[in-house]
Amino acid sequence: MAVIDLSRARITIVGLGLIGGSLGMALRRRHAYHEVLGVARRPESVEQALELGAIDGGTCDLTEGVRGADIVVLAIPVRAIIALIPKLGSLLPEGCLLLDLGSTKEAIVQAMEALPPHVQPIGGHPMCGKEASGIEAAEADLYEGAVFVLTPLPRTSEEALRLAEELVKAIGARPLVLDARRHDRLVAAISHLPYLLAVGLIDAAECVAAEDETVWTLASSGFRDASRLAASSVPMSLDILLTNRENIAEMVRLFRQRLERIAGLLDAEDEAALRDIMMRVQQRRRGMFK
Amino acid sequence: MAVIDLSRARITIVGLGLIGGSLGMALRRRHAYHEVLGVARRPESVEQALELGAIDGGTCDLTEGVRGADIVVLAIPVRAIIALIPKLGSLLPEGCLLLDLGSTKEAIVQAMEALPPHVQPIGGHPMCGKEASGIEAAEADLYEGAVFVLTPLPRTSEEALRLAEELVKAIGARPLVLDARRHDRLVAAISHLPYLLAVGLIDAAECVAAEDETVWTLASSGFRDASRLAASSVPMSLDILLTNRENIAEMVRLFRQRLERIAGLLDAEDEAALRDIMMRVQQRRRGMFK
Repeated sequence: MAVIDLSRARITIVGLGLIGGSLGMALRRRHAYHEVLGVARRPESVEQALELGAIDGGTCDLTEGVRGADIVVLAIPVRAIIALIPKLGSLLPEGCLLLDLGSTKEAIVQAMEALPPHVQPIGGHPMCGKEASGIEAAEADLYEGAVFVLTPLPRTSEEALRLAEELVKAIGARPLVLDARRHDRLVAAISHLPYLLAVGLIDAAECVAAEDETVWTLASSGFRDASRLAASSVPMSLDILLTNRENIAEMVRLFRQRLERIAGLLDAEDEAALRDIMMRVQQRRRGMFK
Repeated sequence: MAVIDLSRARITIVGLGLIGGSLGMALRRRHAYHEVLGVARRPESVEQALELGAIDGGTCDLTEGVRGADIVVLAIPVRAIIALIPKLGSLLPEGCLLLDLGSTKEAIVQAMEALPPHVQPIGGHPMCGKEASGIEAAEADLYEGAVFVLTPLPRTSEEALRLAEELVKAIGARPLVLDARRHDRLVAAISHLPYLLAVGLIDAAECVAAEDETVWTLASSGFRDASRLAASSVPMSLDILLTNRENIAEMVRLFRQRLERIAGLLDAEDEAALRDIMMRVQQRRRGMFK
């Protein structure tokens, strides 16, 4: 199967929110493509993406939008991706690379397995984002320096993987090939658990606030950062949680054990053991980010 | 008892780290004082504070440093404050305002109660900070716009409270008078619980990393912010935890209940109830910070 190189590719982005809009901006800035088209449900979204320079052209008609595409990128919530994949088989041209940007991968690559053989499917997950959503929040720099996970299927050709890696590099990101199952377990720890902690933190503070509203007045930069993920898009986050339930349940159990241990040491005033944990995590955190 | 006004005050800051150093810088920038002296354990700390423009003069001798002071500010960890207070009674001049900047207040105001009557003690807690510590991280803007809690004792005079409020305003912060017990309960929810969650999050991720190091590669801005508080100064944080154990235990229990409820809804795939919680906390968070 002939796979085109990126500079001559016609790329169609389905979904023009933060992720899809930023992808279009990043591609167009680098001129690393032949043409970038956008597909959105609402005409206003297409208009806005055109105005913001995220796409060269767009449509609300999926069939029209993917006609003649060399690469189709799905930038919609995970469950919308899973629902769309079965409809794409008959629409995508011969040899078309189908890449999705959903935040969980196992359920998606499973759906991709059933695609007809003329399509080259691959899962993708850029490890970036922000709590704001919608194309208004899109920026050409969003992917710059970010790790971009690619989860090929057994059926994904070497050429298709290479094209996907080329696209990832073209937007300034760093490709990392991972098994979909392994990806989902790791992001449950490093991404989905932190989201749930932020939700639980605000939920707990709401309980305290019900008795004493002043608690909000005392919120400082520490609370601001610790709670930031709770401001994430709800439809996106809900899809993530519901398509990664078992891994997340495991991580919640693990976290609860660790928190219980720390709380127990505090209760017992075991200063030496507490200090050991606090020093260890401090060193880890200081080594991770500048 | 005659209480001086701030513009003629001689202010001594005990402890020249992030908090004490930033206080000196903020006061000196506003010229809202007669003289700012610094007291530190190590001569190099005094030297550095002088070089950075945080103090007009300094010493390692506490007795000398507080001689003739109108205001003494304790900018050291909570348990160091509690240990120091009994020694200050005989050193502080008649009418001297003693303000501390410790992050928990009940144990400190309790220690302040035993001071001789010629001293005017008041508790204080500026709701700001950052994970970096030491005077290298100090900045004149640290207090700008921050809520600054003041916890007067029954013995604190109106004039002393007014002078403390004047000092708070002089560094650009907003005074908020609270009962020490109420303060400690509220910061357990809004500040100490978030710290423990950040510690527990990294601790849990370490467990996952023990099997699969790649988890760290996938850490993005979400994990960075959710874990930031875990990089805080360990001696400072340890003192906070150990002097606010009961309130923190209550908040950990409350948090655990909320997290369990959310995890239970996810396990049961109760999408509607999950969405309700996620929408509610998202709205709260988006309304809190811009």
